[in-house]
Amino acid sequence: MNQERKEPEYLFSEKQVADKSSIARRFLDTRSDLNEIVNKADNFLVKRFYNIDHNTYLEGAIPSKYKELMGLVASACLRCDDCINYHIIQSYRLGVTRAEQEEAINVALVVGGSIVIPHLRRAYEMLGELYR
Amino acid sequence: MNQERKEPEYLFSEKQVADKSSIARRFLDTRSDLNEIVNKADNFLVKRFYNIDHNTYLEGAIPSKYKELMGLVASACLRCDDCINYHIIQSYRLGVTRAEQEEAINVALVVGGSIVIPHLRRAYEMLGELYR
Amino acid sequence: MNQERKEPEYLFSEKQVADKSSIARRFLDTRSDLNEIVNKADNFLVKRFYNIDHNTYLEGAIPSKYKELMGLVASACLRCDDCINYHIIQSYRLGVTRAEQEEAINVALVVGGSIVIPHLRRAYEMLGELYR
Amino acid sequence: MNQERKEPEYLFSEKQVADKSSIARRFLDTRSDLNEIVNKADNFLVKRFYNIDHNTYLEGAIPSKYKELMGLVASACLRCDDCINYHIIQSYRLGVTRAEQEEAINVALVVGGSIVIPHLRRAYEMLGELYR
Amino acid sequence: MNQERKEPEYLFSEKQVADKSSIARRFLDTRSDLNEIVNKADNFLVKRFYNIDHNTYLEGAIPSKYKELMGLVASACLRCDDCINYHIIQSYRLGVTRAEQEEAINVALVVGGSIVIPHLRRAYEMLGELYR
Amino acid sequence: MNQERKEPEYLFSEKQVADKSSIARRFLDTRSDLNEIVNKADNFLVKRFYNIDHNTYLEGAIPSKYKELMGLVASACLRCDDCINYHIIQSYRLGVTRAEQEEAINVALVVGGSIVIPHLRRAYEMLGELYR
Repeated sequence: MNQERKEPEYLFSEKQVADKSSIARRFLDTRSDLNEIVNKADNFLVKRFYNIDHNTYLEGAIPSKYKELMGLVASACLRCDDCINYHIIQSYRLGVTRAEQEEAINVALVVGGSIVIPHLRRAYEMLGELYR
Repeated sequence: MNQERKEPEYLFSEKQVADKSSIARRFLDTRSDLNEIVNKADNFLVKRFYNIDHNTYLEGAIPSKYKELMGLVASACLRCDDCINYHIIQSYRLGVTRAEQEEAINVALVVGGSIVIPHLRRAYEMLGELYR
Repeated sequence: MNQERKEPEYLFSEKQVADKSSIARRFLDTRSDLNEIVNKADNFLVKRFYNIDHNTYLEGAIPSKYKELMGLVASACLRCDDCINYHIIQSYRLGVTRAEQEEAINVALVVGGSIVIPHLRRAYEMLGELYR
Repeated sequence: MNQERKEPEYLFSEKQVADKSSIARRFLDTRSDLNEIVNKADNFLVKRFYNIDHNTYLEGAIPSKYKELMGLVASACLRCDDCINYHIIQSYRLGVTRAEQEEAINVALVVGGSIVIPHLRRAYEMLGELYR
Repeated sequence: MNQERKEPEYLFSEKQVADKSSIARRFLDTRSDLNEIVNKADNFLVKRFYNIDHNTYLEGAIPSKYKELMGLVASACLRCDDCINYHIIQSYRLGVTRAEQEEAINVALVVGGSIVIPHLRRAYEMLGELYR
Repeated sequence: MNQERKEPEYLFSEKQVADKSSIARRFLDTRSDLNEIVNKADNFLVKRFYNIDHNTYLEGAIPSKYKELMGLVASACLRCDDCINYHIIQSYRLGVTRAEQEEAINVALVVGGSIVIPHLRRAYEMLGELYR
């Protein structure tokens, strides 16, 4: 049952996102530098975990774009700015509209409470750069 | 921008869900009893919060069914069995398939880690009763 | 600076609370049984921690009753039913009114989000028994 | 029951706080810039949530100053530096003493554990600037 | 680097643990029943996650018994009774002494705070049955 | 039972760690500056808590090095970069190998989920500087 397997089709490359938003660029650059360090360490279980993580968001019974938004909701509830940035960018690359991003963040706000607000503020700052 | 306003159309009533699953029935009965106690207390801010909570999952830029699944992901990440039960039931009532429920739970599992597993087990028990 | 030292004066004993509310009684009985098991183990650091814990809520710059309500807010935000029950009971024993209990829970609800609601429901059930 | 309605009377304006503490000023400036971005987005549910959030800390059965300190305890337990800064500033503006701030933080430290310590350190840095 | 691969040698079977402690037996029975339900669902990513989870605690640079105790610390900090029970049982099966179990729980208590205490109490109840 | 009392023997001083890693140095300097501010405030309960915290990691039934690694697992699960840095440094000073550090982080990754990844990345950056 439910093999989430097909790669989604991105409307925008990471490079295009970085060109639109300086916040996104800084985040993507740092993330890429640090991932290189992690990859070099070549830890067996970390690689397995990254692999599962990648598989989770592939096209399946639920379209990738909604799974990325679910990742956004989870990240905002658990209050991880890096994860929020990542899923906003991935959602954007899959054609998610600004209204959809805001509604997903609202689910996190209501479920997670006012403690989510500082992250919501920073998320809106990046949304402002991505959707001009 | 994005007013999440329209009530979704449910395929099943709470009563129908309770008839299919004894776990769902016990949960819905307890929830209903306790909500009556809360309603009688008539606390202004609690009522306002319940109202916002209700509005969050209405039809909007994102269809209600995906917002309920987002609520499920958030609930599983934050590890609240009652909230998990509620969003599984709401999703079921909106026609979400079992495969979609499982994929949403997988997002929570990967984001939230093995600490989610005991909740996943109990969620699968109810899924087994709902989707026979 | 700020030595939180004086024992507060309780208006009600644990026994009186247990007589008013069956939920409180069950909680206090279980807690007392388990604390006996912990005490017998006589673990040095656990005893030290219990001692600090006790000191935290003594009369000081902030009256004990407000510190117990702060403990309630923290417990509700971190979603621990046992801790919520404990601080509601302690607050009640110090003469906190129902309106004050509800306002404290509201702070937790707004800061912590809808994930707090299942705990709020159960808290209101005990409040209903304590304040008849 | 319990309508938390009346605005509290502040002893100090945000400007006065910013003049006393450079940490507070940086925080208030960033917060204000980002809130402007959020306000421009004009999201219906976000505005509703901000409104509830504001109402929660108004004068009521519990004085505003204690509710702000409860917000501080919740924020420190949930480990959000921005929220900690905000509630320390609000408490300060309502005339809360340093000893009271420290006792509130102690509740968070004991409930939340050593994971709170890095936030406590940063909180003490701002307290040092506010209460010279 | 670091392939955590070899199965640890258990001193006791799950059956022997269940015979010593009724709390452990109830937990293991429920866990086994629910795992059967999960296994039947045969979800690809869940199985992958279970596989990584299993690999994490195998003998490696760190002996399995300490990794199980690390799992215990993590579970107690994140306050999951099922996970606490599981890692206490696994540690017991690997020959961990009661004093070691208590010290691991103390790390969780100090890092996680008083919110861990209700879980510590229940953990001590099972420890009392396992180590008579 | 279990008095965790003896100071561990460190292979490296904090100064030697700071000389090896600029990330560690920045962290240790900031921590030291802020701890000075906290110490000056001379809060009774904070000092008591620091004392318990110190005692928790002393040599006992479990060697200090494994307790520091447990502190690392707890910190990574609860996602506190400062605490992660601290326990990596303490573990390093006690002769913990890189493979052991990675295995401990893997426990946190699997228990805590992908939300741990941004912290894992930053941890690997410091590990890279410490273990060249």
